[in-house]
Amino acid sequence: MVRRGRELIQLPGPTNIPERVLRAMHRPIVDFGSPEFTSMARGCVEDLKQVFQTKGEVFAYSANGHGAWELAFDNLIAPGEHVLMPETGRFSQSWADMAQGLGCRVTTTAPYHERPVDPDAIEHLLRADKGHDLKAVMMVHVETSTGITHDVGAVRQAIDRAGHPALLLVDAIASLGAVDLPMDRLGIDLVVTASQKGLMLPPGMAFAAVGERAMRASANGGAARRYWDWRLRQGDETYFWFYGTPPVQMLFGLREALDMILEEGLDNVFARHHRLAEATRRAVACWGREGTIDFQCKVPEARSDAVTAIHFPSGADPDALRKRCREQLSVAFGAGIGPFAGRLLRIGHLGDLNEPMLLGALGALEVAMRLEGVPHNPGGVAAAAAYLAEALVA
Amino acid sequence: MVRRGRELIQLPGPTNIPERVLRAMHRPIVDFGSPEFTSMARGCVEDLKQVFQTKGEVFAYSANGHGAWELAFDNLIAPGEHVLMPETGRFSQSWADMAQGLGCRVTTTAPYHERPVDPDAIEHLLRADKGHDLKAVMMVHVETSTGITHDVGAVRQAIDRAGHPALLLVDAIASLGAVDLPMDRLGIDLVVTASQKGLMLPPGMAFAAVGERAMRASANGGAARRYWDWRLRQGDETYFWFYGTPPVQMLFGLREALDMILEEGLDNVFARHHRLAEATRRAVACWGREGTIDFQCKVPEARSDAVTAIHFPSGADPDALRKRCREQLSVAFGAGIGPFAGRLLRIGHLGDLNEPMLLGALGALEVAMRLEGVPHNPGGVAAAAAYLAEALVA
Amino acid sequence: MVRRGRELIQLPGPTNIPERVLRAMHRPIVDFGSPEFTSMARGCVEDLKQVFQTKGEVFAYSANGHGAWELAFDNLIAPGEHVLMPETGRFSQSWADMAQGLGCRVTTTAPYHERPVDPDAIEHLLRADKGHDLKAVMMVHVETSTGITHDVGAVRQAIDRAGHPALLLVDAIASLGAVDLPMDRLGIDLVVTASQKGLMLPPGMAFAAVGERAMRASANGGAARRYWDWRLRQGDETYFWFYGTPPVQMLFGLREALDMILEEGLDNVFARHHRLAEATRRAVACWGREGTIDFQCKVPEARSDAVTAIHFPSGADPDALRKRCREQLSVAFGAGIGPFAGRLLRIGHLGDLNEPMLLGALGALEVAMRLEGVPHNPGGVAAAAAYLAEALVA
Amino acid sequence: MVRRGRELIQLPGPTNIPERVLRAMHRPIVDFGSPEFTSMARGCVEDLKQVFQTKGEVFAYSANGHGAWELAFDNLIAPGEHVLMPETGRFSQSWADMAQGLGCRVTTTAPYHERPVDPDAIEHLLRADKGHDLKAVMMVHVETSTGITHDVGAVRQAIDRAGHPALLLVDAIASLGAVDLPMDRLGIDLVVTASQKGLMLPPGMAFAAVGERAMRASANGGAARRYWDWRLRQGDETYFWFYGTPPVQMLFGLREALDMILEEGLDNVFARHHRLAEATRRAVACWGREGTIDFQCKVPEARSDAVTAIHFPSGADPDALRKRCREQLSVAFGAGIGPFAGRLLRIGHLGDLNEPMLLGALGALEVAMRLEGVPHNPGGVAAAAAYLAEALVA
Repeated sequence: MVRRGRELIQLPGPTNIPERVLRAMHRPIVDFGSPEFTSMARGCVEDLKQVFQTKGEVFAYSANGHGAWELAFDNLIAPGEHVLMPETGRFSQSWADMAQGLGCRVTTTAPYHERPVDPDAIEHLLRADKGHDLKAVMMVHVETSTGITHDVGAVRQAIDRAGHPALLLVDAIASLGAVDLPMDRLGIDLVVTASQKGLMLPPGMAFAAVGERAMRASANGGAARRYWDWRLRQGDETYFWFYGTPPVQMLFGLREALDMILEEGLDNVFARHHRLAEATRRAVACWGREGTIDFQCKVPEARSDAVTAIHFPSGADPDALRKRCREQLSVAFGAGIGPFAGRLLRIGHLGDLNEPMLLGALGALEVAMRLEGVPHNPGGVAAAAAYLAEALVA
Repeated sequence: MVRRGRELIQLPGPTNIPERVLRAMHRPIVDFGSPEFTSMARGCVEDLKQVFQTKGEVFAYSANGHGAWELAFDNLIAPGEHVLMPETGRFSQSWADMAQGLGCRVTTTAPYHERPVDPDAIEHLLRADKGHDLKAVMMVHVETSTGITHDVGAVRQAIDRAGHPALLLVDAIASLGAVDLPMDRLGIDLVVTASQKGLMLPPGMAFAAVGERAMRASANGGAARRYWDWRLRQGDETYFWFYGTPPVQMLFGLREALDMILEEGLDNVFARHHRLAEATRRAVACWGREGTIDFQCKVPEARSDAVTAIHFPSGADPDALRKRCREQLSVAFGAGIGPFAGRLLRIGHLGDLNEPMLLGALGALEVAMRLEGVPHNPGGVAAAAAYLAEALVA
Repeated sequence: MVRRGRELIQLPGPTNIPERVLRAMHRPIVDFGSPEFTSMARGCVEDLKQVFQTKGEVFAYSANGHGAWELAFDNLIAPGEHVLMPETGRFSQSWADMAQGLGCRVTTTAPYHERPVDPDAIEHLLRADKGHDLKAVMMVHVETSTGITHDVGAVRQAIDRAGHPALLLVDAIASLGAVDLPMDRLGIDLVVTASQKGLMLPPGMAFAAVGERAMRASANGGAARRYWDWRLRQGDETYFWFYGTPPVQMLFGLREALDMILEEGLDNVFARHHRLAEATRRAVACWGREGTIDFQCKVPEARSDAVTAIHFPSGADPDALRKRCREQLSVAFGAGIGPFAGRLLRIGHLGDLNEPMLLGALGALEVAMRLEGVPHNPGGVAAAAAYLAEALVA
Repeated sequence: MVRRGRELIQLPGPTNIPERVLRAMHRPIVDFGSPEFTSMARGCVEDLKQVFQTKGEVFAYSANGHGAWELAFDNLIAPGEHVLMPETGRFSQSWADMAQGLGCRVTTTAPYHERPVDPDAIEHLLRADKGHDLKAVMMVHVETSTGITHDVGAVRQAIDRAGHPALLLVDAIASLGAVDLPMDRLGIDLVVTASQKGLMLPPGMAFAAVGERAMRASANGGAARRYWDWRLRQGDETYFWFYGTPPVQMLFGLREALDMILEEGLDNVFARHHRLAEATRRAVACWGREGTIDFQCKVPEARSDAVTAIHFPSGADPDALRKRCREQLSVAFGAGIGPFAGRLLRIGHLGDLNEPMLLGALGALEVAMRLEGVPHNPGGVAAAAAYLAEALVA
């Protein structure tokens, strides 16, 4: 069946790329050694610091989110060294798998798949590590497989309470530019992210914001490395910052995306994400009033403003629902992945999104639930609309 | 306030331009005399005949919809000649104003602002014109100022019943590629349209499909003319077809738009428009259950599949509602215009549109009605969604 | 044969469209009634006045250059009225043909196909028109069929010397934004142009700059008209300025093109055109040293900075040469047209052009002349390069 | 100074990106899990095999050329293992530096900066390695810092003559899609490349073509790895092939670039590169007739068809010349880099290039040499044009 109109991408990433960004990238190649380009690229790095909320260093790579994960290891954790990775879902699992693949030792926790990481448990584990064998706590801020925002600040305090020197390394791939994460104020040592979510770019770049402690730790620590080595990514030319040819078009896109974020203002960006996420939650709450649909996250205040994961106690098949949405209604939702494969449907609501786009996606989901016979209490879109009206008055 | 996300254009035109079309137009200039370009342009004209549903000739102009109107006069109606223009709203009025400006004589009818043109009235007028002074009946198919589809076939039959030789000239600006209008089968002599509605292109082109009788009439009739003269728009080169330089980029866009329409299939295009229009009407009917909102068109089956015009017996201000939608919700709706200024809100639903886009627009309108305190019965989006689910099963 | 790399368009129009302009036009449709769009469009009209070098009014149309010609007639010259059109080549002929088609009377002159219009001849004709039957002198500034710049200022003075009230109407289609034409200072009453040459846009728009005398003349004069009537193209909304839907994407392109022109500065634009034109002439002079190639224009200082037309006394076939260039070398040159069909090759050098693009085109022409066996003295590109080096030092 | 017209990029990379590729990339994000996208991506990988001229496996990464180098190590060479890297210039040096950074042992050779690698020297070194300590010979095919094409086939034969089991790993970053390198026929075990040269894409992707021996070697060999590990890059979903989110827009661009290459035909691609390179060499030879300009490569038949490096025995400053070209003439040439910094000027002539583009670049260089007072024998462009005429006849 030929579909018409714009496809709506409600994945938790990659997210919709704004027209302005695509337009900025549609540009002939330039001489990346020219002063104009160098100056533009430098401005991107400076402005990224505002988005990371840090006075530390920012490094950019041609890579994806997995590359972002790997650079955290290579720069800071040598093979054989030991890290603590709270078990939060598919992405903490993959990151831990990477740790093992790279020859590091990993301690995980009990699963936090329905509620946020318990800081007391972290404190307990760190106190038990009397020899300070653990080099870092590595955690996911917004775990996109569950839709849970984990409390990075509370974990920082737990580390401090334990008097443990472990670095705190955070995956903000699904939260940077969507959910507030004041890196310096929270005392985070490293934040990594990728281009295709809150930064609204195509996939293909990874970023690291590195605090002072992490810079020091990397000076003599980490693995033997080259591509990921941020120590090399310095100097006067973008060729050095990127350890080879910089991704020219992506940088033009990044410039535009940063302009958009800074024009809107970070606080407004976060407020918009909260508003749209809460509208989504109101819709879900309405649909699930009779228990046929529920949030994966059982702690309401930990439900993320970036993605909402829902399941179907009624036994409905979320993958059939997604397929229906994609094929007949031109809306793409996220699947359950990893330990949640076949069990969840995830509604992404981050990036370049507004009220009618979200209402359209929720409306299409309501249509699809009818078509698939998924038991639900009707009226979700109306509930979302009612909330948005309230929120926009304020 | 900085807005984010894609703006939704629910105007009755210009309509959303598909990505594919914009992409096809983003192209360096070419030598318009090259065989490749000539062949591409010729293919567009041929394929347009399918969309016009005619075996007649199709001509293309750099112009807008008013240009399309003017070419109808200049090729067929000389200054001083007499035409009958049923009064259907803002657009028939403007066309009639043009007639007078060009020195033609115009007879109009009683206003058909809430119901379709009465063919019997046309028959009556033509029977009264015993000297066959009237050269043509010129009517608007979908009058976008009221959202009414006028029955062109019934008017044709009225002319025939009256045994009158008047040509039947139709403005399909808001209907071609959206609402079925089988030109040859209905016996229409001329259909004119513009690029920015059902053809999904930027504004800037006008088109005429000319039947055999109209071709003959133009051979020696019409006004002194050059730019609009379709007799000149022939030959082997696009330079002649366009009476000067052809609109190169627009033709690349037209090629893509035609591909999209023919891939989908005209019947499917019409069915999609009907489905989305009916969903809109279900929403409106729900909102207006208590009489606070009503259709401009009082005859349900004449409500157009291209645009729905509504008014607010409660006294709500449609322009404040539109402003709210545009400024706070990134959705543009159409205003009341001409005799309906300040009194209507028009929901365009033609062109490159799908279910989530429409549901998003309706959802945003529901939010805006709450924000503006417009009395309405809630649940319109749910009603639209329910209808869409039914329709998509079928 | 599949060709690679960017095709070089050395037509006298349409000309190469800058990336920036294409990018600016690659944009979703907007609500043309929004304040942002209206303000942008208004700024375009204001800035166009700088390019036209006038304090008069500027009007914009969806049309092409022939439309620009027609609006000159319809607004100023009624059917039956009489105009003087100096015969300068293909374009004055077509304009005169239009005059007759529109029912006007035309007096032409002896042909000025190899040298500029003789102002004394114009003066003579006007002095003979004692009854002031002639309403206007209508002339082409740069006649692209011959590559001759006609001296508009000298014609103005001739009119004044004759004490004749005729309006002076100028076609600057191939010169605006390329060859200096200070409208107000020269006392021109109307300048018309189109989008696809010095303005660097796709074809599809026409423009008129109207001085005070022409505004007055149009108030009660001209033909019965609507689409072309600039009296109607006023008011607060772009819908009125464009007598219907404005060409939204073209206006975004125009905004960008005007920014480019004003950034560079009009004087620099003219100087660049002169430099590139002179380099072309040096190449041609070198190739033709032995009389096998010559300029169509026999008066060196009248050779235009927009286009150079050459012929081949050796009997070489310019169309075979053009075909070779286009098919094997990816460069498009202009053909001889109208009275010069088959006899000229025209090298466009206006619009978004720089030194390497021009040198590449000239180099390709040298290659093609070798391939076609066109007699020529080698070294044209070197001569052009030598001149450019001199000119760039200055 | 504001420059106009298209900038000409004659870097040895990144190279000019075709319009078609940029257009193909200007596309909203899609659901990368959809069957349509998966199928498109799979087709890219299959078609890349044709370009690599292999029946082996092809893997794609978000990375740049340095990433391509690193994946060669990580998959095949463990820390502590030993490789032979012929010293060919800046890029072999950087690759060797990477080897050391990753903890590998490197043997290099005498420098081959003015002539191709001597296969006998390689054979000699391998014969001396009786314990087969050397795991691989890692060489650069076209060394862009010198413009020399090194004879990979001859090195393969040298390895074979020595009866040594070392793998042959080749950097074809500056040659794939430009200079013939029949991987399987030559017996190469691994070819790595990047997106921004012969593949005509923006920078941001790296590719590896892996032969059977290399696949086996990687099964249990190489470093601890994750991101670069091609063993993981398998399965039914692009998410796995890319070890995380695939670079969606780049893949659309790759699809288009591959279509262009295959439409033209690999042999024609190579022939075109040869023709344009030879034209460049003719120009340089002419300019340097009196010894003031010379090729970096002293062996004519080893001068690469991808890039020509020249030096100035007269003492002229290549960087001042480049600056002049870039700032005043809108052409970007490559600088001398690494051991050649300040001493060379490099003319890239690979990728999406045709005759007029090249002639324009050479013409601009001739202008710049005049402006900078660089001693040269004039007539280089004419010599290039004369050669092109000969070559195009054939």
